Amino acid sequence: MYKVNEDYLKLPGSYLFSTIAKKVNAYTQAHPEKKIIRLGIGDVTQPLAPAVIEALHSAVDEMAHAETFKGYAPDLGYAFLRDVIAEKDFKARGCDISADEIFVSDGAKSDSANIQEIFSRDCRIAVCDPVYPVYVDSNVMAGRTGTYDTKTEQWSNVIYMPCTAENGFVAEFPKETPDIIYLCFPNNPTGAAVTKDKLQEWVDYANKVGAVIIFDSAYEAYISEDNIPHSIYECVGARTCAIEIRSFSKKAGFTGLRLGYTVVPKELEHGGVTLHSLWARRHGTKFNGAPYIVQKAGAAVYTPEGDAQTREQIAYYMKNAAYIKKGLTDAGYTVYGGVNAPYIWLKAPNGMTSWEFFDYLLEQVNVVGTPGSGFGPSGETYFRLTAFGSYENTVEAVDRIKNM
Amino acid sequence: MYKVNEDYLKLPGSYLFSTIAKKVNAYTQAHPEKKIIRLGIGDVTQPLAPAVIEALHSAVDEMAHAETFKGYAPDLGYAFLRDVIAEKDFKARGCDISADEIFVSDGAKSDSANIQEIFSRDCRIAVCDPVYPVYVDSNVMAGRTGTYDTKTEQWSNVIYMPCTAENGFVAEFPKETPDIIYLCFPNNPTGAAVTKDKLQEWVDYANKVGAVIIFDSAYEAYISEDNIPHSIYECVGARTCAIEIRSFSKKAGFTGLRLGYTVVPKELEHGGVTLHSLWARRHGTKFNGAPYIVQKAGAAVYTPEGDAQTREQIAYYMKNAAYIKKGLTDAGYTVYGGVNAPYIWLKAPNGMTSWEFFDYLLEQVNVVGTPGSGFGPSGETYFRLTAFGSYENTVEAVDRIKNM
Repeated sequence: MYKVNEDYLKLPGSYLFSTIAKKVNAYTQAHPEKKIIRLGIGDVTQPLAPAVIEALHSAVDEMAHAETFKGYAPDLGYAFLRDVIAEKDFKARGCDISADEIFVSDGAKSDSANIQEIFSRDCRIAVCDPVYPVYVDSNVMAGRTGTYDTKTEQWSNVIYMPCTAENGFVAEFPKETPDIIYLCFPNNPTGAAVTKDKLQEWVDYANKVGAVIIFDSAYEAYISEDNIPHSIYECVGARTCAIEIRSFSKKAGFTGLRLGYTVVPKELEHGGVTLHSLWARRHGTKFNGAPYIVQKAGAAVYTPEGDAQTREQIAYYMKNAAYIKKGLTDAGYTVYGGVNAPYIWLKAPNGMTSWEFFDYLLEQVNVVGTPGSGFGPSGETYFRLTAFGSYENTVEAVDRIKNM
Repeated sequence: MYKVNEDYLKLPGSYLFSTIAKKVNAYTQAHPEKKIIRLGIGDVTQPLAPAVIEALHSAVDEMAHAETFKGYAPDLGYAFLRDVIAEKDFKARGCDISADEIFVSDGAKSDSANIQEIFSRDCRIAVCDPVYPVYVDSNVMAGRTGTYDTKTEQWSNVIYMPCTAENGFVAEFPKETPDIIYLCFPNNPTGAAVTKDKLQEWVDYANKVGAVIIFDSAYEAYISEDNIPHSIYECVGARTCAIEIRSFSKKAGFTGLRLGYTVVPKELEHGGVTLHSLWARRHGTKFNGAPYIVQKAGAAVYTPEGDAQTREQIAYYMKNAAYIKKGLTDAGYTVYGGVNAPYIWLKAPNGMTSWEFFDYLLEQVNVVGTPGSGFGPSGETYFRLTAFGSYENTVEAVDRIKNM
């Protein structure tokens, strides 16, 4: 008789965004006349850049003729894309990363969920708190996290690194030594960035204790300040301790196209086994490449036109972020983020919990955000707003909150 | 100090198709004047159908405007695709499968590799021998297969079900009772199909012993005979014991577009936990949907035009299959498959091993096929040719073999 994966059953039932959806649905059914503005989920709203659209049409035409038709893609991605990534995202910033250390995938979510698989089940993970839920959930499903305490909302075998206003939302070294450290900067949900000096300390720490850093830089394109590293490989020694995950979703609005990549330097090895060879094996056995037409779309992001157009999109979203940040600050809120990331992280007023503030905003001004507690216990009493809405809606939402 | 996943290290080193590529490269370097014809890897060569191309262009245009732009897809796939799949692939054949039991993915390879994850690590798998290597490899990586015996080329904790000429290349019930049974019909590599009566026996057996059948019907579109089921749900009782995996790769030439789906009936449950809920959780946590434009392309396959055009492609490949089958039979070879599948499975002549025949064909007539032993020990002395080449190349390859 077959049995199911018991580790799956350990996951707490309700998912943050489905709970939000239920609450919003209940409200709109009771108040169908109200206009709800959603600044909750991190999905983009602007259309794909013209250069990307052009590349897609052109690649589709190639698929229509036997001479230019493309079947199975190379496991690790087409050279035309890996080469331009190595050049523009790394070499141009002084990072020593070569094209054959880049693994193209169907997105940063899959990669950040799957990367744990190449490590032993005995490894102990450390995560920032609050953080994107996929890191912990994928480790729960692999049986690596111990038992869940419903009171503290923590797993017994996970090392939590609180990111709070006191430490500028940048994690400090944990007391216990982790094997795998998940860092996401610029951060989802807090919008905090890490300085190059601070990230260098993390790289040194990981090399010292023999840990691997999984560095999620999905939001690097939103960095506006000079002293903020776009890649962990800007730090000395990162090639022996860090894997980096990148996304086209937020950089170029590919949430519906699906494209990302993971960098695994060849120096990363344990006991003579390179992590590069393990990740290559996983790609080869359990994945069959990102679509050719999507990889062509990705390459178009790096052309002069594509680069200019996607930067314009990011500027559009960051104008929203600035409007939210200024508006809420003017209204007396304590506000973080929004400078190097499309996320605004604010303190719920008057001692409210995250969910109390969620209900309050929904009912008073019909604005939907995301309760900070959904990202981890240290997110409690905080609230996330995203800059991915239209400018008009963003302005209206902020003005409603200001006039509340 | 982090440790790597030791189960990954158990995988035997060289992958079938990379060994083939190395041998072919060595030959072409030594003989640059020779024209090699490749009937080895199962990749398609015909361009995408006009209806699919049209749907892609139209969906790309939608992505160019804010009003019609699509961001994150629903985890389980767009309703427009799941509905038409339920209707055309299942209800039209009398199978009781509803749209919300269909999980759209980036392809059958990912699904057939990932599906094992929802089961306990204690489960014991049974596989046909020879077979598509991904079933076993993904279970090796999950630590479910025991130790590898390099002499027998078998894993200690895998139940092998030999598929030989004696049993018509259709597995018989194993002596030991498995928890998970992988069946692939029409089969890769043997090209054998299973009759409805025989598949019903498998369904009854699985229900009796409490096993789950993972039914891979990636090649169902190639079925030409009447008594061959296209879906396992044509059998009574399959809803309580079977998961089915489908592919658009061979049905509509999507090897480079990436689209597939998996059916998990809601009745499939153990101890009150439905496999449907577990697979939904995996999709929600570790995957972010197939691209909108690719899902639109998939839906176009079910339009009257798309259906007619993709059937024409399949007829083109099956004409190749028939030519190979007749030509080799005429030349005195013992040949199987090629009637309900795009694969021809032939016995190496004169007592040659699979690899000896590979070298012989490569050197004598510059034709590349796939050694049967690469698919499992029972594939030894067999050889796979695929019907996915161009008609001209297929004819030339067969004529070269005939005149050898």
